[in-house]
Order: sequence, then structure tokens, then C-alpha cells
Amino acid sequence: MRYRKIPDEAVRRLPVYLRAALHLSGRGIECTSSQGLADFIGVEPWQIRKDFSYFGDFGVPGVGYNLSRLIKHVNRILRLDTGPKAALVGVGNLGTALLTFPGFRMYGLEIAAAFDIDKRKIGRRKAGVLIEDVAALSDLRTRGIDLGIVAVPEATSQQVIDALAQAGIKGILNFSPRHVVVPRGMKVITIDIAMDLARLPYYVPAG
Amino acid sequence: MRYRKIPDEAVRRLPVYLRAALHLSGRGIECTSSQGLADFIGVEPWQIRKDFSYFGDFGVPGVGYNLSRLIKHVNRILRLDTGPKAALVGVGNLGTALLTFPGFRMYGLEIAAAFDIDKRKIGRRKAGVLIEDVAALSDLRTRGIDLGIVAVPEATSQQVIDALAQAGIKGILNFSPRHVVVPRGMKVITIDIAMDLARLPYYVPAG
Repeated sequence: MRYRKIPDEAVRRLPVYLRAALHLSGRGIECTSSQGLADFIGVEPWQIRKDFSYFGDFGVPGVGYNLSRLIKHVNRILRLDTGPKAALVGVGNLGTALLTFPGFRMYGLEIAAAFDIDKRKIGRRKAGVLIEDVAALSDLRTRGIDLGIVAVPEATSQQVIDALAQAGIKGILNFSPRHVVVPRGMKVITIDIAMDLARLPYYVPAG
Repeated sequence: MRYRKIPDEAVRRLPVYLRAALHLSGRGIECTSSQGLADFIGVEPWQIRKDFSYFGDFGVPGVGYNLSRLIKHVNRILRLDTGPKAALVGVGNLGTALLTFPGFRMYGLEIAAAFDIDKRKIGRRKAGVLIEDVAALSDLRTRGIDLGIVAVPEATSQQVIDALAQAGIKGILNFSPRHVVVPRGMKVITIDIAMDLARLPYYVPAG
């Protein structure tokens, strides 16, 4: 890890800032203040300045942020500048949605391989990606793949995470809400869609 | 809103605590300390105590939390005790994955209706839910549906959110990463899967 003592919450917000910067830059805007960025995202400007301060100072006082420099800087912090590749395991409905999802490319991310256990799917292509036998997971690192995306049924998620760990994968995006044991040295980010829906009624007045 | 000045981050963590409490309770455990809960989730115990303090005190000093009482309390705070119902708009790969997703039931949530624009899908059933014409969105509130889930292509997400607002929906889970204008009085939680993948390389050492 290159940076220490940086709260996960700050890291979580960096892609939000990156997306906003890409949007504004795409509209032809060259510079913006933390206020301009904050208004676009819907956070407080001090939050943005504080988060960026963990990674050195990007802004120029009185001028603000040069967007192309900001994008480059955040890409480097998040290691997106290396064009990270991910292997997807599980090409069901969710996996297929992920393969066809247009949002990854914006961040320089690519799903470069897909695996399934279903013989009828193996050998076919989805969104241009060949579906391979999950038994052939082992040589991911030699293919330049560092990340894993787990979109399998709950009952097999632990097994798949262990297999990805053995294949040298150090970071996983996990869509299975089941409690998993994370192998040493691996970072697992779990997306539990139900959890996001579960906090929605809090904001909605009854009746 | 019944509670004021509660940080979104605390609300975000409540379903995490709820899930942990449900898991532990399912194992036959009746009581646990904030430490026990924290160990299970992987957060700090003070964080749990602080978050719960916003909503009154659930714990008994020296004893900890009675899990069934904790579950009941959090369910009430999040309004999950009313059995919230959601309407899904967009029954593509992602929408189908959501309809068959087993995780919602744990929180008492139900996808009670599904809508699509594709005439070939309308009238069919997925996971027991009838797919209706998106043009018939208007009477959701009379059907006891308060929440919306938007899983349509980016280009139509704004239109669908506006239609849901007109149908009286006040809370939306939005899977389209596109910037949308949120109608007044509506809460939109956007899930950008790419953003979660985008912060993963940060945690993964190069090479």
C-alpha cells in the first residue's frame, strides 16, 4: 500500500470525484473550484478538499482544480492508469448484466475473462468475452488479470473466492451477500444490493 | 422524517448491523456485546455504539444487546417492519437478476411489480412476478408500492424516474450511473457498480 492511514470512506469517494471531473471535462470545462465540484456531486466542498488533502494537494488557490490534471492524479491514486483487468466468475443474469454494463470503460476497467461451471455456457461468447471453464481459473496472473468479480450463487461464493486467491487474485468485487472468510492479503468489496434497498424506506415518509 | 441530523453514513450501516444480528440470532445466540457484533462485521465497537446512540440506547450495560430486541428496533427505524414493496422498472439481465435475488426477503423487502417497455416481455412472469407495460405505472401507490428500482438503460433513466415520481413513488434505487435530476421530495440511492470496482485496484499492490 503506497498511502497509509487513509480512511476507506475517502477512497470510496475518489471515484465519485473522478466521475464528476470526467463529466465536467466532457462538457468542455477546463477548471473548477471545490465548490463547483461539490455542487455537481451534492457534497460539501470541505469534504472534497479534505479527501484530496490525504493524497497531496491538487488544487491551485484562487484558481481551483485543473480537471485534466485532477483526472490524471485520481487515476494514478486509484491505479486505474494501469488499465486494470478483471475476471468474472458466474455468467448468470447478474454476470451477463456486468459483461454488457457500459460503465466500467469510463474508469479504464475491463472484464477480460469470464468463467462459469455450466457446460452449455462454456465456449460461447457474451459481449465479446469467451466463457471459460471455471476449472481453468489458475493462470489469471500470467494473463495480466489482477481483479476478480464474483457473481455466483451464495453457496459457492467461498469456494470461488478461495480459487481466485489461489490464482493470485488480490482484489475481489463480491456480489454474494453471504459472510465469507477472506484469504490473507486479499481485499474483498462486497456489494449487497438488498442492503441499499433496505435503507431506502428510512428516507420515505409512510403513507 | 422522524429522526433529524443523523448522518447518512450511520443510516448506511444500520442494515449491516441488522444483517449481522439476523445471522447471529439464526445461530441461536440471544445476546451479544458491541464487541461481539463488531468482530463479526469487521468494524470498531465504538462505531456501533455511536451509530445506535442516534436512535436511543438499545444496549444493556454489562449485558450487551438482546438480539431479537435489536432486530425489532432496527427494523422499526428503517421502516422495514411495514414490509415495504418495490416496483422494478426494466426487466433486462440486471432486472431479472434482481427479481431472482434471494437477499431482499431477509430484510422484509419485496419486489411486488415489474415493468418493461418490450412488448415481448409484457404479460409474462419472471420469478412469479407479472411483467407489466411501463405505460401502466400510474397506480402504484394504490397497490401499496412505495419504492422503485430503476434498471433501465442510461438513456431512459431520467424519464423513468420522472414517471415514478408522478406515480407517487418517494424512494428509488437507481442502477443507472448517469447523472439524473431528482424530483423534489424524492430520495434516490444510486448504485454505480463500476465505482465499486474502480476503488478496488487501490487496495491491490501492483505486479
